Amino acid sequence: MSTQSTAESILQRVSDTIASRKGADAGTSYVASLYSKGLDTILKKLGEEATETVIAAKGAAAGEPKEALVKEVADLWFHSLIALGYYNLSAADVLRELERREGTSGHAEKAARG
Amino acid sequence: MSTQSTAESILQRVSDTIASRKGADAGTSYVASLYSKGLDTILKKLGEEATETVIAAKGAAAGEPKEALVKEVADLWFHSLIALGYYNLSAADVLRELERREGTSGHAEKAARG
Amino acid sequence: MSTQSTAESILQRVSDTIASRKGADAGTSYVASLYSKGLDTILKKLGEEATETVIAAKGAAAGEPKEALVKEVADLWFHSLIALGYYNLSAADVLRELERREGTSGHAEKAARG
Amino acid sequence: MSTQSTAESILQRVSDTIASRKGADAGTSYVASLYSKGLDTILKKLGEEATETVIAAKGAAAGEPKEALVKEVADLWFHSLIALGYYNLSAADVLRELERREGTSGHAEKAARG
Repeated sequence: MSTQSTAESILQRVSDTIASRKGADAGTSYVASLYSKGLDTILKKLGEEATETVIAAKGAAAGEPKEALVKEVADLWFHSLIALGYYNLSAADVLRELERREGTSGHAEKAARG
Repeated sequence: MSTQSTAESILQRVSDTIASRKGADAGTSYVASLYSKGLDTILKKLGEEATETVIAAKGAAAGEPKEALVKEVADLWFHSLIALGYYNLSAADVLRELERREGTSGHAEKAARG
Repeated sequence: MSTQSTAESILQRVSDTIASRKGADAGTSYVASLYSKGLDTILKKLGEEATETVIAAKGAAAGEPKEALVKEVADLWFHSLIALGYYNLSAADVLRELERREGTSGHAEKAARG
Repeated sequence: MSTQSTAESILQRVSDTIASRKGADAGTSYVASLYSKGLDTILKKLGEEATETVIAAKGAAAGEPKEALVKEVADLWFHSLIALGYYNLSAADVLRELERREGTSGHAEKAARG
């Protein structure tokens, strides 16, 4: 029934796949290759995907297809999960944090973060 | 039963809350205030959160608490959802894209993206 | 005579001013205030200015005034100088590096950087 | 005499070289190749260099050589000049903007920018 839940559990599945590739040979997958190159390379990719998200969002304002924005955000979240995985953290940790904030209004939340 | 699904459906709930605040008075919430300022302000915040994610990840390598990284990724995803919402897109679109890629190895995927 | 040189020596003057404000009371200037907040705040601002540069450049492609791009690059370079100043480095160090690369073709240079 | 001025005029020389490569065959230089790929590729590189600057600055705080920061800022400024060149703008425009701001205190300047 719950196609929604199924659709959403994808994030944790991606996190699990990333974790399983952490020790693997660099030649076997993109994720294994990133981990073999180290944290700075992972973060450089994350920054690159954030820039591409901004470019795609501005492009959509100028009439470019908004599907590009969806793809860039997917890339950005994917590389966020790789950065989290570097510290043995996963999607669940981020989702728990978002849940913790739920109900807190944005202004109150921002004030709380200082 | 499915605490996992419950935990993960948070992303779509956040997306829905963001959508509900789109037309609201700027004074009523952080999200409404961002939308009233326009796309460039939203993207500027997104870039800022990406930078803070990189800073937190490097900080964790130097012994700072890795919880900071979780919080920054949560901020980054939250502002990604606001950018998506600007175009009436939501978490579901990104999760669908990630699901579509599942099973594709990273290297094949990267080659496919060109 | 050399208006060019005069115009360009501005970068080192800005670096010198930044250095002079490093130890100053946080209330006395924007730079002193940034230094009092520490490296992460400085880098966060630098990332923010880079994002704003990207936004302005995409905006110019959509017909927004290209003067905004000039202002954002000025902001970006200014905050780069603050980050350098944190480590007692200045504009001269960057200009020396650019001079060192001169004559090296981009492709050779890139290959050399690995 | 003025080694300072000589050292600093490098920025305009780099801008001029970039301008001269704008129409050139993509195979002849890194800059020509970037221009042939278009604005989004140029901006993606700029965002990447900004991220690398942040990574190098955090690395220096953890004991990595601060020379890496100088190299990354040089890369960042170089790609800023390529983005400016895309709109037929150059280092001179940015230096003029920085000069215009000189004498304005940071706090006043920030207030003026809104």
